[in-house]
Amino acid sequence: MKYVALDNLTEMQIYWLITGSIAPRAIALVTTQGQSGHVNAAPFSSFTYMSEDPPLMVIGVDNYHKGPRAGGGEKSHRMGEMKDTLRNITDSREFVVNMVDEPMTERAVLCATDFPSHMSEPEAVGFTLAQSIAIKTPHIAEAPIAWECKLYRILDFSKTRSIVFGEIVGMHFRDGLLDEERMRVRAEEYAPVGRLSGPNYCRTTDRWRINIPVYTADDKPRI
Amino acid sequence: MKYVALDNLTEMQIYWLITGSIAPRAIALVTTQGQSGHVNAAPFSSFTYMSEDPPLMVIGVDNYHKGPRAGGGEKSHRMGEMKDTLRNITDSREFVVNMVDEPMTERAVLCATDFPSHMSEPEAVGFTLAQSIAIKTPHIAEAPIAWECKLYRILDFSKTRSIVFGEIVGMHFRDGLLDEERMRVRAEEYAPVGRLSGPNYCRTTDRWRINIPVYTADDKPRI
Repeated sequence: MKYVALDNLTEMQIYWLITGSIAPRAIALVTTQGQSGHVNAAPFSSFTYMSEDPPLMVIGVDNYHKGPRAGGGEKSHRMGEMKDTLRNITDSREFVVNMVDEPMTERAVLCATDFPSHMSEPEAVGFTLAQSIAIKTPHIAEAPIAWECKLYRILDFSKTRSIVFGEIVGMHFRDGLLDEERMRVRAEEYAPVGRLSGPNYCRTTDRWRINIPVYTADDKPRI
Repeated sequence: MKYVALDNLTEMQIYWLITGSIAPRAIALVTTQGQSGHVNAAPFSSFTYMSEDPPLMVIGVDNYHKGPRAGGGEKSHRMGEMKDTLRNITDSREFVVNMVDEPMTERAVLCATDFPSHMSEPEAVGFTLAQSIAIKTPHIAEAPIAWECKLYRILDFSKTRSIVFGEIVGMHFRDGLLDEERMRVRAEEYAPVGRLSGPNYCRTTDRWRINIPVYTADDKPRI
């Protein structure tokens, strides 16, 4: 085993070690709407769920553009600008989390390109926008699942990211994905894609099941 | 598309819809140490990274035992008890996040069994404990990567979970996993496992690469 203390590393070294360790990560393709009405989309993998009551999710949004990290270190013409996603969420107090499956992965990742602010990523990469129900921000029609979210809280204790909590108010499911009777997602119909380190992505089709047993003593459950 | 509003659903229905949607999820096998000295381990998939400065990760820890959810709804003899992980983190203000790869997955999941509080999960399932460097809580020797963490903050705005932020102070890497010159994890040597909905897990070996291009106009980058 090799031990590395983090306190003498640079921000980018820490970024690479963290994102190289924690994998696979679900991808949130977040759509937001600017004040001028145009729709932005950006992928985030510092993303997870946090609570059932209220139903909360969280993403860590880089405060400022630093250039496409996975592309080999090219600098961006937008270095130092506040990310559109963060500005739009702050203004509209809502957003959509679109889940990413295999047929849409390349286009979802392309949304991380540093398009100028006036360009709409969904349009630029060929996604179709669909109207949402409880919020104004549209979701991506190609997404297998889309969560409509209202801004719950933004935490500012990170120097590098805004920590954005959203309350999930409703969910869209592609036809056939939801078992309405059991009110569960049909796992066998759903093939989301995971993010690994850097430019690496993985399929989730190689699966197996593990059940968690209840505790037993003397060959009898204790309940 | 089918739309489901969340406001009339039960907590468990929301749990299933959220965890059925967001996948694949990295697994944090969290070790903590109780005041009596014995070591607890429990897996969490409401887990992600949140920041580089400070280096922060987050997990959502169920406040109380509700029985093994993935096991088909059996009740636990520990229903209503505060989770050992949460009590230990509150007491010791530290913990370790052990990453999970294929050879250790079954044992990591078994740690979610509702063992009585006095039992040590790592011992019960056959893991070896190894001494940490910056904190007292040991890590799991079999883990490919282990993060030593100090408690940063516990947020209480969820009724169902404690939202625990940890500051990563150091990382252990299995021999061969760290490229020390580039200070990056060797992605090709690392095969973490993802959690899908319920008892479903996936391998991450079916991979491909996607590079993010910088924005170009008139066939020239704008920088």
